[in-house]
Amino acid sequence: MRRVLVIGIGMGDPAALTFRAVEAINQADVFFFLDKGEAAGELIGLREAILRAHRREPWRAVTAPSPKRGTAGGYRAGVKAWHDARAALFAGLIDQEIAEGGVGAFLVWGDPMLYDSTLRVLEAARGHGIDFEIAVIPGITAVQALCAAHAIPLNGIGEPVEVTTGRRVTAGTPEAPAFVVLLDDGSGLAALMARGWEGHVWWGAYLGTADERLLAGRLTEVGEAILAARAEARARKGWIMDVWLARPLPAAGASFETL
Amino acid sequence: MRRVLVIGIGMGDPAALTFRAVEAINQADVFFFLDKGEAAGELIGLREAILRAHRREPWRAVTAPSPKRGTAGGYRAGVKAWHDARAALFAGLIDQEIAEGGVGAFLVWGDPMLYDSTLRVLEAARGHGIDFEIAVIPGITAVQALCAAHAIPLNGIGEPVEVTTGRRVTAGTPEAPAFVVLLDDGSGLAALMARGWEGHVWWGAYLGTADERLLAGRLTEVGEAILAARAEARARKGWIMDVWLARPLPAAGASFETL
Repeated sequence: MRRVLVIGIGMGDPAALTFRAVEAINQADVFFFLDKGEAAGELIGLREAILRAHRREPWRAVTAPSPKRGTAGGYRAGVKAWHDARAALFAGLIDQEIAEGGVGAFLVWGDPMLYDSTLRVLEAARGHGIDFEIAVIPGITAVQALCAAHAIPLNGIGEPVEVTTGRRVTAGTPEAPAFVVLLDDGSGLAALMARGWEGHVWWGAYLGTADERLLAGRLTEVGEAILAARAEARARKGWIMDVWLARPLPAAGASFETL
Repeated sequence: MRRVLVIGIGMGDPAALTFRAVEAINQADVFFFLDKGEAAGELIGLREAILRAHRREPWRAVTAPSPKRGTAGGYRAGVKAWHDARAALFAGLIDQEIAEGGVGAFLVWGDPMLYDSTLRVLEAARGHGIDFEIAVIPGITAVQALCAAHAIPLNGIGEPVEVTTGRRVTAGTPEAPAFVVLLDDGSGLAALMARGWEGHVWWGAYLGTADERLLAGRLTEVGEAILAARAEARARKGWIMDVWLARPLPAAGASFETL
């Protein structure tokens, strides 16, 4: 039986990997790099830096251009077509590049459980008539790196937290007492500002790397600075990975400390 | 300046620690163990196993009985009084056990950001007139260990996820298309069952340890088995740490694969 390891590698700091992840990196016969878009070159470079830091033997990597996501038919249709194309690609790679009894690996930013399609696409790849086992190794997510960098808890005491996307925040403000926003191109934060939302935000970009940027405060006071820092960094590096946590102002008489 | 390291150690598997966590473990001059309740002995034993696995020099640990949480005045008042008592305890420990320029460490289950009070209590300890720096090192949470063990994503494509507590689910069913439940004594799951909730659940206990238990399926089919497994394991070991993810059944015509 072939094995596919889906390894969470955190946000770019080689020391943020777990020992389990490094063990998995040293079990793989082949690594698959399928980055897409403007950041592809740099993201592959970061993955290679992680392999240089942790792999004890020479390694083989197969780099394939990821199918592009179309916009025809709307967001869901575009995602569906993109997943189908990727499933066919994954099935071909597993079939051709992993020997019977061999081990292939995908290195996933953050953790494979959170806003990443690798597990879904692998399940779909099984529909192409090849059989393989999947093992998942968790990694530190952007959400954790953000909270650690600011030394803050994610949740209020006993309170829920919504994990959501920039697209959703653009469509409407979450009602949770705390919400953390991934995959935001800045539109979500700008939408909150335009709505006059009152609360605190904690923002971070390139977390755990030499380029790390952090900003926090009342949205009315730091919102413009975050959008400016984001635009500047993105223009300079050509890509950005960032995340932010938002908590509406507590009701009168309460405070963050007692929440 | 004194330094306090708040180190996420995952769910009990020494290999689930990050290299950053191990680096921090080797910087500490003293470790503080403040476990409480029925599991205190075993949890301290698990922490010591982690130190044996990763600490290169002999270590000093200070074990203090954690103040008990009262129930007078309701949940929030009880938590507030408990935090105040812990803040005084932490301030005393830092003052007495960490030398000027020295480093103390708290080893926190999972990640300090998620349903853990250490960071809040340390902030409150500053009110007792001692000064120190805080550094946070993330760790793998129960949520990540659960998803990895089941090899599933946490979120549907582009969908939000609510992170919540058993207490809240007992009070009312979350409306999010996926919700993950921590700190449930079984009442939250039982409440969903009593309400005739229709959906899938993925449950795990003692994740990443030799005692790991996993169950998954339609709640109507696995709910009783989860509650029974939970009660049996808790009775046998004297304590349990578990977590579950729930997703309501997709609307007619949709499926999990396309969500």
